[in-house]
Amino acid sequence: MNFCSNCAQPVHLRVPPDDDRARYVCEACNTVHYQNPRIVVCALPVLDDRILLCRRAIEPRHGLWTLPGGFMENGETIQGAALRETREEACASIEVTDLYTVYNLPHIDQVHMFFRARLLDDKFAPGRESLEVALFREEDIPWDDIAFAAVAGTLRHWFADRRRDHFPLRLADIQLDTDNRRHEIPFPSSDGQA
Amino acid sequence: MNFCSNCAQPVHLRVPPDDDRARYVCEACNTVHYQNPRIVVCALPVLDDRILLCRRAIEPRHGLWTLPGGFMENGETIQGAALRETREEACASIEVTDLYTVYNLPHIDQVHMFFRARLLDDKFAPGRESLEVALFREEDIPWDDIAFAAVAGTLRHWFADRRRDHFPLRLADIQLDTDNRRHEIPFPSSDGQA
Repeated sequence: MNFCSNCAQPVHLRVPPDDDRARYVCEACNTVHYQNPRIVVCALPVLDDRILLCRRAIEPRHGLWTLPGGFMENGETIQGAALRETREEACASIEVTDLYTVYNLPHIDQVHMFFRARLLDDKFAPGRESLEVALFREEDIPWDDIAFAAVAGTLRHWFADRRRDHFPLRLADIQLDTDNRRHEIPFPSSDGQA
Repeated sequence: MNFCSNCAQPVHLRVPPDDDRARYVCEACNTVHYQNPRIVVCALPVLDDRILLCRRAIEPRHGLWTLPGGFMENGETIQGAALRETREEACASIEVTDLYTVYNLPHIDQVHMFFRARLLDDKFAPGRESLEVALFREEDIPWDDIAFAAVAGTLRHWFADRRRDHFPLRLADIQLDTDNRRHEIPFPSSDGQA
């Protein structure tokens, strides 16, 4: 951020009065430009024992597989975002059932939220952000080609939880190690919070 | 938004190529300025059978009571935001246990998330955004002076859930009716999702 979006004067990074963090501040019109984390919402659409995945036609992670999802938009709900993203990326209709995993990604200022969902029929097709869309059984999941750590984590949890037919809400952080590898750090315990 | 925060030229509200929503677009430097919902995180700090509330020293809802909370900051986790806000507004130390309620507020582009928490001791005091901080038993909660619908809803759920010692994750929307009254619309059922 270089300029004030309100008055076009240069902004400066400084701690406003009664605050303790540096913000972009415009001293011409006194606007403080707060920046906050964004929410990514995904669906985990299930049909019988298969899960719907999309192969990405866009960066980042072009060519890798993901669950349908994307940035939540203003004016919508998180469950509405899951429906919309599934329709846009996979041309598929789902019923969203419950919030299942929540991941903090503090290194990129994002929170990723995944809903369990039922795929309503076997009609799906690549949307403009997908190269292909397909249903996968557990033994066919392309584990080495999953686009995002939170997607891989959610899939692993789902297959494990399905064995006991118990799907507690799971909250975890994705942390980067010094080699830029991503690790899932569960909160507060590895059994989920329930 | 009037001007591009990158290059200071005027922005225009239009639908970018390969998009279906109007965004603030700078045609000088080709930056699309996305705007997304913000996350508010709160704690529900409990000591024995009492809950810690803060009376607001700031707008909106100056003078009304709320659970400690506020906007999640870049670089932190949702549970970290709950700890920080409780320290800042109530000068109190908590242990965050589990994510309890999630509210969509699509009319103001916010998602509110509440954590159950244990107050670690009986030391607390008003931070600079609070007029006073106090512990309340159920019969003493100032129901007519609660600042926000999501706070009132979370408190009501907690007292009801405590009777059966079962605290399922609850997801709901806060909707405005034509008289600007706020209503909680549970998703997907009134018993919580668990």
